Amino acid sequence: MLYQKLNKKNSKRRINKMTITLDNELLSNLTNSVISQMSTTPSARLRTVMECAVRHLHAFAIETKLTPEEWLTGIAFLTAAGQMSSSDRQEFILLSDTLGLSTIVNLLQDGSGLVQATESSLLGPFYRNNAPSYQVGESMARRCNGPQLQLYGRILSTEGNPIPNATVQIWQTDSEGVYDIQRGSEMDTRGVYTTDENGYYHALTVMPKSYPLPSDGPVRRMLNAQSRHGNRPAHIHFLISAPEHKELVTALYVAGDRYIDDDTVFGVSSARLIATPSLDNNAPHPEIPTICYDFHLVAGVAEGGRVGADVATLKY
Amino acid sequence: MLYQKLNKKNSKRRINKMTITLDNELLSNLTNSVISQMSTTPSARLRTVMECAVRHLHAFAIETKLTPEEWLTGIAFLTAAGQMSSSDRQEFILLSDTLGLSTIVNLLQDGSGLVQATESSLLGPFYRNNAPSYQVGESMARRCNGPQLQLYGRILSTEGNPIPNATVQIWQTDSEGVYDIQRGSEMDTRGVYTTDENGYYHALTVMPKSYPLPSDGPVRRMLNAQSRHGNRPAHIHFLISAPEHKELVTALYVAGDRYIDDDTVFGVSSARLIATPSLDNNAPHPEIPTICYDFHLVAGVAEGGRVGADVATLKY
Repeated sequence: MLYQKLNKKNSKRRINKMTITLDNELLSNLTNSVISQMSTTPSARLRTVMECAVRHLHAFAIETKLTPEEWLTGIAFLTAAGQMSSSDRQEFILLSDTLGLSTIVNLLQDGSGLVQATESSLLGPFYRNNAPSYQVGESMARRCNGPQLQLYGRILSTEGNPIPNATVQIWQTDSEGVYDIQRGSEMDTRGVYTTDENGYYHALTVMPKSYPLPSDGPVRRMLNAQSRHGNRPAHIHFLISAPEHKELVTALYVAGDRYIDDDTVFGVSSARLIATPSLDNNAPHPEIPTICYDFHLVAGVAEGGRVGADVATLKY
Repeated sequence: MLYQKLNKKNSKRRINKMTITLDNELLSNLTNSVISQMSTTPSARLRTVMECAVRHLHAFAIETKLTPEEWLTGIAFLTAAGQMSSSDRQEFILLSDTLGLSTIVNLLQDGSGLVQATESSLLGPFYRNNAPSYQVGESMARRCNGPQLQLYGRILSTEGNPIPNATVQIWQTDSEGVYDIQRGSEMDTRGVYTTDENGYYHALTVMPKSYPLPSDGPVRRMLNAQSRHGNRPAHIHFLISAPEHKELVTALYVAGDRYIDDDTVFGVSSARLIATPSLDNNAPHPEIPTICYDFHLVAGVAEGGRVGADVATLKY
């Protein structure tokens, strides 16, 4: 028989016995090999970012002693997030938001040092280019009902000088906590206003409402596995731009909302972004609950500040 | 005019001036907030893994001072990876491989301490369940031509005892560096063998060839941006299992391949996995170039060792 021949040679044949010592050196050698192979990257910035990414990725796996099953769960989770994304849904932005990464990038974008500017908040996945333009004082709630809300105030430089002709984009949920996009209907509760010669903006709308993140994707499955409620407090988004100023992306959060101290996406980055609607004798309509809020933009070269984009414009 | 009324009140109105100090405290407060919100996670293991993931994700963004544009590039890249994945393509496994993460998980899976077992290598995205079974000595290259190669040796315990009836799954490219799946054809150059009563396996096949990773997805775009060649050295995959032994996923790399010291997916985790085909008077067919290799399995409870899976079976 064939293998009798082989068996006779056992004693002579090389036995691939070996010793594996899994120590830090073996693992760090691998990390260094990866970084070494990526060192050909022509862009110094890409090289820096990827080296840092690899170091943290490897350290994460080593510190958690990540198992093959967990690794595969992660692969499947990330794949599902990509496949859930479409022209009106961005699951990776949602993931970034719910892990606090978006707010970190916002804080970094706000810059270091002492700056007398309004804090950023999240752009979020519901921003859309080409929202309708409205005149000063017009209502942007065209197709929905709900308690009225008045928004007004000024767009100012950090020195307190009014900025005329600033563009103020506003978007929010309706009073049931639903964005227009989620209803599949035409645009509503979103609009673009322009400040007057004294830097004032003025909009009518409805009261926004707190709302749960989408219930049908991998991010929701993660939130459920973490026993997180998955809600955002009621808020109103602002994207404000003016020539020779840094774009400001922020939001105002409605005081008293039950989720305001526990926002699922960590958008309430400052108590100064919390506003209390109240009757305001100085407002254009003193009979309507009102938020009066001045926003301060950093002067300088016009610069984007959006941690995000109109999801419909993203290319993969 | 409406806003004259408002202007008169300027001096009385609240000016939302504020000071932002972006210091480590602000950023670490956010990291702690995220971890605190996730502390409700019932599974202690999931809590540990996600806390570690969030710490590294935040640290990565802070250390690189990640910009909004870079963040969005990352979002789009990950989304594209998800959308590129299908029942016969797994772009996130490819990404994990090319960043060295898969090999890290393999090394962790090999365990710590001194173990006299064969090292793991990558399962990779081309493994398939239900490959055809062949008899001892049969050829698994059924539909392709190329220089013949003979594989034989024993499956042994770490103490050197032969393991009869072990299952030896083998798969590889053809001699043009292409996997059957990539041709869309029926299964080829893959097969399942069983060791004989003395622990021997014996297979005929063709010489594998080095090959480039897929050229049409986001991972290839990353490799190109990094000026990496994107090739794998020629190799033969083995997945070996036996009752009461830990499953072994490994590969043998063909000595002399130009990419053997620079594998794009860092699969050549040990020089002991490099084999030189040569004529072997002890082989069943001494006239065919041969790799004789003994594999050593860790005894104990039967345990999976696959860093990966048949991609077609993954659910998202």
